[in-house]
Amino acid sequence: MNKIFTVKNEDKNSKARTGILHLSHGDVETPTFMPVGTNSAIKALKHSDLEKIGFNLMLSNTYHLFLRPGDKVIENYGSLHSFNNWDKNILTDSGGFQVFSLAGMRKIKDDGVKFRSHIDGAYHFFSPESVVDFQVKLNSDIQMVLDVCTAPDISEKKAKEAVYLTTEWAKKALLQSKKYDNYKGSLFGIIQGNFYKELRKISAEQILDLDFPGVAIGGLSVGESEEVFAEFLNYTASFLPKNKPHYLMGIGTPEYIFEAVENGIDMFDCVLPTRIARNGSAFTKNGIIALKKAEFALDKRPIEEDCPCTACQSYSRGFLRHMVKSNEILAPMLITEHNLTFLYRLLVDIRKSIENSNFLEFKKEFLYKYNNGIV
Amino acid sequence: MNKIFTVKNEDKNSKARTGILHLSHGDVETPTFMPVGTNSAIKALKHSDLEKIGFNLMLSNTYHLFLRPGDKVIENYGSLHSFNNWDKNILTDSGGFQVFSLAGMRKIKDDGVKFRSHIDGAYHFFSPESVVDFQVKLNSDIQMVLDVCTAPDISEKKAKEAVYLTTEWAKKALLQSKKYDNYKGSLFGIIQGNFYKELRKISAEQILDLDFPGVAIGGLSVGESEEVFAEFLNYTASFLPKNKPHYLMGIGTPEYIFEAVENGIDMFDCVLPTRIARNGSAFTKNGIIALKKAEFALDKRPIEEDCPCTACQSYSRGFLRHMVKSNEILAPMLITEHNLTFLYRLLVDIRKSIENSNFLEFKKEFLYKYNNGIV
Repeated sequence: MNKIFTVKNEDKNSKARTGILHLSHGDVETPTFMPVGTNSAIKALKHSDLEKIGFNLMLSNTYHLFLRPGDKVIENYGSLHSFNNWDKNILTDSGGFQVFSLAGMRKIKDDGVKFRSHIDGAYHFFSPESVVDFQVKLNSDIQMVLDVCTAPDISEKKAKEAVYLTTEWAKKALLQSKKYDNYKGSLFGIIQGNFYKELRKISAEQILDLDFPGVAIGGLSVGESEEVFAEFLNYTASFLPKNKPHYLMGIGTPEYIFEAVENGIDMFDCVLPTRIARNGSAFTKNGIIALKKAEFALDKRPIEEDCPCTACQSYSRGFLRHMVKSNEILAPMLITEHNLTFLYRLLVDIRKSIENSNFLEFKKEFLYKYNNGIV
Repeated sequence: MNKIFTVKNEDKNSKARTGILHLSHGDVETPTFMPVGTNSAIKALKHSDLEKIGFNLMLSNTYHLFLRPGDKVIENYGSLHSFNNWDKNILTDSGGFQVFSLAGMRKIKDDGVKFRSHIDGAYHFFSPESVVDFQVKLNSDIQMVLDVCTAPDISEKKAKEAVYLTTEWAKKALLQSKKYDNYKGSLFGIIQGNFYKELRKISAEQILDLDFPGVAIGGLSVGESEEVFAEFLNYTASFLPKNKPHYLMGIGTPEYIFEAVENGIDMFDCVLPTRIARNGSAFTKNGIIALKKAEFALDKRPIEEDCPCTACQSYSRGFLRHMVKSNEILAPMLITEHNLTFLYRLLVDIRKSIENSNFLEFKKEFLYKYNNGIV
């Protein structure tokens, strides 16, 4: 497999580093946040506007795309990029997380997982091999192996079985991916192990042993406390080799992003920034604000003075509040663009701070204002 | 009052004409379709994108804006234009139509109408004077008088009472509007009369007698057949003086637009083009298409080949179908932009055909393809 990652700068006082992901649809600066477009579009944002913000890597969900539009439609268009008109990079997850969230509607077997569609209840089967096949059809720039995701409260015995199966499936996925000579994307492995350190260690060793071009940490930020999250992130990340890209799945708030970057994480994704936008909540350097609040009715200021997004350049907090209160579609449109612009700019600043070796200082200053609402 | 309208070209074979509305926020070419932004924003479209299409006159609803955000917020921002960041023209209706749609929640009195808010059930009162006051606060470029709107099935006696009150209120509104020296907008009268020709005649004479700078026809396209609509439009329009702008309230499909223009109408508005967009229906020269249909799943063509909108420039019918089926917000965003672009361009073509004195020919050709799905 090709080398897809170059480390650029390493912070002197932490494991934070900057780098470049060399992908088929262009280089991506890391650390990077990947906006989630479940159905191949970011909710309430045009692809051209995503690109204008600066993003060139988005995430889509295999589970959703497999059910709808399905492989016949994707085959007709040739790739997901041709279908959704996004000629930048796409990372697709394996569907594992979604399928295992279907409590009572899925059954794990040795060779894969049988599940029922949340749309029409129809039965489907995902195997490590079929998930690779589908992601190759999508022409995903980065695809993920099918893993066994577990709830945070299961026994060590069950967690161990999941780690075993995750490794077996990773081997099968890797074998399957080698059948595709013309596929330019990369397959990443996923480390599981629930909240058992011994299992995290075993999973890390087994997955890293398979020498994927990139590796992800799964099964964190699933409801555990911030302390437990930080402890297991730190522990699991300690096994990661420096020369490969590190992807922490499912995080996207400033606090968690800083924690991840400090532990040498290069990539992360989360629906939260776009989901809270649809409820009228906007990121600011002084914390998240809920625009529906009465205090914003007469507020002529933009969400953030120095933000280049459409919401901040064209509209006041008072107008945005009116849009939120009136359930106008313009509200999620504008706040989604703002929240993604906020995160994009935060990552630019984080990368700068790493280059200047003052990441920890920047983290402290930023989170102090962010957590205390200091203006 | 200033002269706000100039007739440019008159079609030789019909009453169709082109003209210019001289308004405070710029000249508007007529005939013109006015997109409806009920809460001061077109649903699913940024103001900057409305301007990019070419529109410089939008409609907003007094009833909705009075209830939310309300006059305190508008006063704080100085005008509706400052509030919604639209420095082009705004026409506001009087709230009459909305209030009279609140069956069982409103009571007509001689001096106005008492009604309950659809939002919180609170009691409010609109008088001809208060509605002028509020629209002056909005700084509407064109404001409408409070009229008595009636259902299409009422008795002649009731319709006559409504005409009487509509005229009384028009006089009061006119008097009230003269109190504002610094207000640059114009107040338009509204002709009512239900589906009784005698009453239409009386209402037309009485309203025209008041010499408003512009005049509207209300109470049509409220559920009557296309034939009855055409008959009453033709009859009512026959009273309109050539030198004033003619506004037909509540129409916006190609068939009705052609009918209106042929009868010398200069302005019209309708929620339909944006409302059907939110259901996945798109205008094409060959009729409206419902993008959710299975036949579009593999269709790589845009909605319309020669359309400059984002949907047509960037996305296939198949992708748009996927967005509609997935209930993605991107679907109404893209289809709204398309439908308004379609109508904007249709009006450009209509104006050209009038200038070239081949309006009736253009109408015939257009509607033949449109109604028969001829590609």
